[in-house]
Amino acid sequence: MENYTQTLVRFVLQTRTEDIPQNVIELAKKHFLDCVGAALAEAAEPRSQIVRRYFSALGADGDCRVVGHGTRLSVENAAFCNGILAHTICFDDSGPSHPSVTIVPGLLALAERYHFSGKEILAAQVLGYEVFQRLNAATAEAWEMRKRGWHPTGFFGAVAGAAQTARLLGLSQQQAQRALGIAATLGGGLSQNIGNMGMGLHAGNASRNGITAALLAKEGFTADERPLEGRFGLLDALCGPGQYDASRLTANLGAPFGMENPGITIKPYPNCWAHHKVLQAVLELREKHAIAPENVERVEVDLQTDKPTYRYTAPKTDLEARYSLGYGIALALLDGELTLAQYAPERLQRQDTLEMLGRIQNVPAADEQARQTVTICMKNGQRYSGRVQYSKGHPLYDPMCLSEVQEKYRLLAGRLLPQHQVEASMQAIVHLEEAADVSDVMDLLVV
Amino acid sequence: MENYTQTLVRFVLQTRTEDIPQNVIELAKKHFLDCVGAALAEAAEPRSQIVRRYFSALGADGDCRVVGHGTRLSVENAAFCNGILAHTICFDDSGPSHPSVTIVPGLLALAERYHFSGKEILAAQVLGYEVFQRLNAATAEAWEMRKRGWHPTGFFGAVAGAAQTARLLGLSQQQAQRALGIAATLGGGLSQNIGNMGMGLHAGNASRNGITAALLAKEGFTADERPLEGRFGLLDALCGPGQYDASRLTANLGAPFGMENPGITIKPYPNCWAHHKVLQAVLELREKHAIAPENVERVEVDLQTDKPTYRYTAPKTDLEARYSLGYGIALALLDGELTLAQYAPERLQRQDTLEMLGRIQNVPAADEQARQTVTICMKNGQRYSGRVQYSKGHPLYDPMCLSEVQEKYRLLAGRLLPQHQVEASMQAIVHLEEAADVSDVMDLLVV
Repeated sequence: MENYTQTLVRFVLQTRTEDIPQNVIELAKKHFLDCVGAALAEAAEPRSQIVRRYFSALGADGDCRVVGHGTRLSVENAAFCNGILAHTICFDDSGPSHPSVTIVPGLLALAERYHFSGKEILAAQVLGYEVFQRLNAATAEAWEMRKRGWHPTGFFGAVAGAAQTARLLGLSQQQAQRALGIAATLGGGLSQNIGNMGMGLHAGNASRNGITAALLAKEGFTADERPLEGRFGLLDALCGPGQYDASRLTANLGAPFGMENPGITIKPYPNCWAHHKVLQAVLELREKHAIAPENVERVEVDLQTDKPTYRYTAPKTDLEARYSLGYGIALALLDGELTLAQYAPERLQRQDTLEMLGRIQNVPAADEQARQTVTICMKNGQRYSGRVQYSKGHPLYDPMCLSEVQEKYRLLAGRLLPQHQVEASMQAIVHLEEAADVSDVMDLLVV
Repeated sequence: MENYTQTLVRFVLQTRTEDIPQNVIELAKKHFLDCVGAALAEAAEPRSQIVRRYFSALGADGDCRVVGHGTRLSVENAAFCNGILAHTICFDDSGPSHPSVTIVPGLLALAERYHFSGKEILAAQVLGYEVFQRLNAATAEAWEMRKRGWHPTGFFGAVAGAAQTARLLGLSQQQAQRALGIAATLGGGLSQNIGNMGMGLHAGNASRNGITAALLAKEGFTADERPLEGRFGLLDALCGPGQYDASRLTANLGAPFGMENPGITIKPYPNCWAHHKVLQAVLELREKHAIAPENVERVEVDLQTDKPTYRYTAPKTDLEARYSLGYGIALALLDGELTLAQYAPERLQRQDTLEMLGRIQNVPAADEQARQTVTICMKNGQRYSGRVQYSKGHPLYDPMCLSEVQEKYRLLAGRLLPQHQVEASMQAIVHLEEAADVSDVMDLLVV
């Protein structure tokens, strides 16, 4: 009998591009667009120069352009940069964890180097997500590993990246299994770095590792061919022996595709997705009750700072603010919206921000449902409570439709690209299956 | 109060080179020599071309030569190659886990790029080991993580590499703490890959990650500044929250240096160090009782194949053979020695090898002491049992002295370098503190 890794790899290598349903391809393009938008927005941030300075100091170059500034690097390093760009600003999708930023950045780099068509890229993308989502499924959304401190993106993403690269480069079954083995053994990522640049690095590292793994395997490098479910493999290491369901790696592959169900959340707000239910509730309460921020006495909420994704109560940087529920609530109350403007570094220490932050009261809650409930207490004694079951962007219950994702893309890409390029690149991605060579699309993604 | 990471980093950055005791420097040079020898022996193996082909396919180059063939790569990629070379042939030291192959390869690459003196390199080396050994100490030699499937080299080595690089590049305290954070979040490695090239990759990846981490931090990249003992940091993730003793990261730093005590085992045999007690017992019994292999009826031993370092009972490659206790016993009995010759690929399927392997009987033992005992049963009914408490190479009880390490170096380096270069490079390393520029030593390490 085949082992799980073998079956999963066979599915990735042998699924025919034309057999992927059109609705899945449409989803793929939507996530592709959303991911590229996040990368372009980050490329407009001053900190994005740090990694370029690093590569410049190394004297590294190559023939693959990086999204945004078009820095030329070798294929695996371009993926590394694209991944960091896509993830750092914290506006990319959540699956849970972050599939797109480990999948799309590598695809862009591979297309630059090998000139794949849009159809080939989209099929690889769909199958990359399939692997990522299967790892989510087998590990119950990675809860066991999260408790210790592992951040799934860097581990699952490396394996997904290796799978999609193996398909694109035409690796054999054995080479592809080894590629997964190499990727699994290269993967890394600690939640301790949630709220600083280290988190973006998880995506960059995963994107690079996937390509490195497939290229090494292609040249003859070996690794264990059962790296996921083996006794000392990735799942044992991350979750603990037996603390996962390996059969979910392969049960009913592609039926439906993981991209469709459970699907992947596209974020309406540029902060941790885990905060969105509470934040949406705040925004809804503010609008419904026409709450004036100056009349808010205090807000009662469980700040959940025992979780790495909620760590910061007094954020010092915009990246920390993205993992501060209190900060998100404060700015939602002040501005009635949560966009990149609310996470601009200059908002952090403004007097109104600090004052409103001081009114957020941490009230530990008894259960998970209560942890997602927020109560706004007004100076006049009124109390408004709210909770959202499925926040905006949920792939099944409240998805962001294409036009909403396009609107988001315009805002994000527009921070770097001139207007005509924003529209042209958007059209190119929305019609990606028509591209004979995806590196042509890259022409539109660099300034 | 300072946290542990802070104290450890301060020690690495502020220890004065001239305050490191001369006996510790002597140990450092011995391990440096031993590590370089292992890298040169592997560079003579055909498989060492795989990684060179990978970099050639990428079109990567740079100004740092790789040990052996002198391939020119950027500093972090040279470290990557050096690390893979040093570890793959499984003849490098064991601390436990494998410090030198994450420390020396990076130092060689850094010296090539930045032209450090021998004194600077040796001080950084000693402090790199200090960090590695402290991680061993805090995690009780990594036993908890090993049970799951993590291989410590790739994690501890990345952090040690970041520490030594931070010192050499003159990073600030904050930059250096961030470098450790970046390295901790980049580290990876699964025991599932013990017995294939993936294991060498753990050393290469660690060597590269340490340099990347320090260079990124120097350019302004951020990461958590308490990456080791933080609630979602490396030790929680690897061992489980609370399942380690963080105070051992810093208690009595440098008194003595970890390189001196507990010290690091230098291997006399090119296979997993964990097998050495049994294998030495077999060699001693064979000699003491003048055992002729054809008179051996069977060997009773616990093959311990539940551990990743003992996985293989019917090894198909020389790398698998290195993690097969049965194979080591069979060849020890046949040849009366364990050198690289016994692990040549052509020995694996030879008739005498297979026959002797068939006589190794797996007898599960009740306790750890019994697991290290071997009994050779002769056709005439004689039974010879043996067990070694501290095998050759143990740093405190039976160390390999410098002349033995030099003899080993001659054999290993001689597989690639011409005789005069073997001697000249050995002298250069034995007197490394006299080198004004360690890249001059590299002249002697390439063909």
